Amino acid sequence: IGNPKAIDLWLDVVEDPRLRSEQLGELDPGELLRLGDLMPVGVAAEVTDTLALHVAVDLVRTVAAARGGELLAALESDRAAEILRELDADERERLLTAMPAEHAVVLRDLLTWPPESAAAHMVPDVLTVGRSVTAAEAIAQVRDHRAKLRQDAHIGAYVFAVDPEGRLEGVVSFRDLVLADADTAVADLLEPDVVSIGPLTDQEEAARTVVAHRLLAVPVVDDDGRLLGILTSDDASDIAEVEATEDAERQGGSQPLEVPYLRASPLLLWRKRIVWLLVLFLAAAYTGTVMQAFEDELEAVVVLAFFIPLLIGTGGNTGTQITTTLIRAMSTDNVRLRDVGRVLRKEMATGLLVALAMALAGIVRAWTLGVGGPVMLTVAVALVAIVLWSSLISSVIPLLLKKLRADPAVVSGPMISTIVDGTGLIIYFTTAKLLLPELAGL
Amino acid sequence: IGNPKAIDLWLDVVEDPRLRSEQLGELDPGELLRLGDLMPVGVAAEVTDTLALHVAVDLVRTVAAARGGELLAALESDRAAEILRELDADERERLLTAMPAEHAVVLRDLLTWPPESAAAHMVPDVLTVGRSVTAAEAIAQVRDHRAKLRQDAHIGAYVFAVDPEGRLEGVVSFRDLVLADADTAVADLLEPDVVSIGPLTDQEEAARTVVAHRLLAVPVVDDDGRLLGILTSDDASDIAEVEATEDAERQGGSQPLEVPYLRASPLLLWRKRIVWLLVLFLAAAYTGTVMQAFEDELEAVVVLAFFIPLLIGTGGNTGTQITTTLIRAMSTDNVRLRDVGRVLRKEMATGLLVALAMALAGIVRAWTLGVGGPVMLTVAVALVAIVLWSSLISSVIPLLLKKLRADPAVVSGPMISTIVDGTGLIIYFTTAKLLLPELAGL
Repeated sequence: IGNPKAIDLWLDVVEDPRLRSEQLGELDPGELLRLGDLMPVGVAAEVTDTLALHVAVDLVRTVAAARGGELLAALESDRAAEILRELDADERERLLTAMPAEHAVVLRDLLTWPPESAAAHMVPDVLTVGRSVTAAEAIAQVRDHRAKLRQDAHIGAYVFAVDPEGRLEGVVSFRDLVLADADTAVADLLEPDVVSIGPLTDQEEAARTVVAHRLLAVPVVDDDGRLLGILTSDDASDIAEVEATEDAERQGGSQPLEVPYLRASPLLLWRKRIVWLLVLFLAAAYTGTVMQAFEDELEAVVVLAFFIPLLIGTGGNTGTQITTTLIRAMSTDNVRLRDVGRVLRKEMATGLLVALAMALAGIVRAWTLGVGGPVMLTVAVALVAIVLWSSLISSVIPLLLKKLRADPAVVSGPMISTIVDGTGLIIYFTTAKLLLPELAGL
Repeated sequence: IGNPKAIDLWLDVVEDPRLRSEQLGELDPGELLRLGDLMPVGVAAEVTDTLALHVAVDLVRTVAAARGGELLAALESDRAAEILRELDADERERLLTAMPAEHAVVLRDLLTWPPESAAAHMVPDVLTVGRSVTAAEAIAQVRDHRAKLRQDAHIGAYVFAVDPEGRLEGVVSFRDLVLADADTAVADLLEPDVVSIGPLTDQEEAARTVVAHRLLAVPVVDDDGRLLGILTSDDASDIAEVEATEDAERQGGSQPLEVPYLRASPLLLWRKRIVWLLVLFLAAAYTGTVMQAFEDELEAVVVLAFFIPLLIGTGGNTGTQITTTLIRAMSTDNVRLRDVGRVLRKEMATGLLVALAMALAGIVRAWTLGVGGPVMLTVAVALVAIVLWSSLISSVIPLLLKKLRADPAVVSGPMISTIVDGTGLIIYFTTAKLLLPELAGL
């Protein structure tokens, strides 16, 4: 480390960008600084491009401002903007001032869009031609942009035709341009029905558009039809991965971490977890009230307590299965609001089948614990009621959230378990009061 | 429906492939059959390409064999193979026999690979040239394959140089080929260090390779270095989405559905859910045994029961938060086996912070229920112990599974809750026995 030859050797030996990123991520800031200053800027940019975001941020933060600006200018602008967003205002300004003015203008523009919008991830350098030129002229124009094109295979995949005001008129794939006869007019090759997105389109929806249409890039077009930039399919893949991670974390009952797991300090992990834990604890606290209300029943037939964890656990498990499946189906767009009737019929029918099987299992378990017929019956009936109840609320709540335009992915397994815990207890003790003769007088 | 003009109108009006797929998916088989027969084969193939898999399967299954064969031959071969895999052997044979022989050969070859392998998803029609030709000659060869290229923007992105035995020697992007001087030798443009994958590479890992290297396609190369085909980035996105859905379903404690949610019958949903529910019920059944073992304690201090749902719920929630975050971090490759020490230190430190906060919350709750000092202390101490215990096992189990080369994603929230339920009860009652004077003699 710190020796230019050693760095060349390292770059030669370690070719996998994930491996490079991982190894750089383990260096301390001082070492990272030395490395960032020593690598040729082209190589440094190439490495920075493949680095995990937090390592890239550390790198531009630790090197001198001039070097950092140079590095950011050599990156694709969407990547550079992503890095700049992670810095505080002072650092960002310092780097923007240090880089060539034309790059700074582009980056400042990108930074004005909300971070979750499609525009924040777009590449503003788009290949455009007028519709009146020929294929050969268009290719010549593309050739003039050769340097820009070398950067990323995704950027030059399509050439966009625009009118003098910059309004999008159509698209032609670079390949069709090359394969056409040289004097064909671009207008004849154009596909005028372009799939496009608005700059404020949510990044998740934008990414899904790219994938659903199997595009290499989708143009970002403002309300006046002007072409602002493109969102490329590799950026769309990155967005989809980040969104899937956030959804997984929410499903587990945490707030999204926003930094890679290994970088998260215990204090950050604590902050992201404790909020929901306390909310759920507060919500679950009424289970104590429920139990207190049924204290007399519990004292009269203490064996009822034996089945509490089993019953509420089964209710929670049933609900968690439903919400995770349903929320994923909603986020991959199979299930929409108007399917609410189908979803409920399906889940209640499934719930009935599940309930019967679990009641049978409950009877077997009650029998092995030797608790006698009436308690056995109570457990079986309570299991049926709890499973059906859990099926109902865990189907309805995600659909209701979608209806209210909230993200259904906030419904976590722990949340459903908590809701079912207390209500399940009420169902259980009420069933017991109805079925057990010794509780009749209470 | 059933009227060719109406179909043209529909294709004109409904341009979004997702919308088309959804609307076709709602037709019954008879209607689908009429539509599939009436559309021009080119349009039908285009529609089929963007359809959800199960609708596409229904379509080729319902139309006449000759028509189905024609349709499949017009699709990309990886898509056609994907559809054929869903059919039973008879139907598959009927369609393969009905299509042109050269297509059938390619498809039969694709079908020999395991469905989860990279090779099963590859496009075998790759653009290859010898390394001795010039850029202009290479472009001329590409032009000869124009028809193939039109099908999919991803296929022609790279041109691969192979030796006479078909062994991969390097890659050049189609664009670099075009932008180079006409008489440049392909050998001078070649990038010899090609990122490639083996045919039996797991599809999930293959998809991740495409995304990590920001490729448009990755070559599939056998042990002898021969180029078998390419895996394109759009197919990689599809794979990543399917894998994310399967992981989400597993995390929720179900087996993966494998069909779209709205197509799943209650019986199928029941089958995918009941296995884990029964396993977890069986595992949770020992909570009854634990409670029975502490029956005397419970009878002596019945208020202990009030806190059971709250305590085991908090243990389950803590564990679910950890496993979901950790498993996602492992599947996006941030966390590896050698990080086990860091993970454990991080989670135990976080667990301690969480435990202290929850103990405080527990004291407040015990005070509001008016249960007295000793029980209050028991609840607080038990909460600390349960949270720490839950943190430990929910960090260790996923890492252990990875170590055993099993998929850590099978560790669901419900599984962790179940494990913590019973062990949490033991912790709770043991704490009570140690701290409550009235239990001292039991």
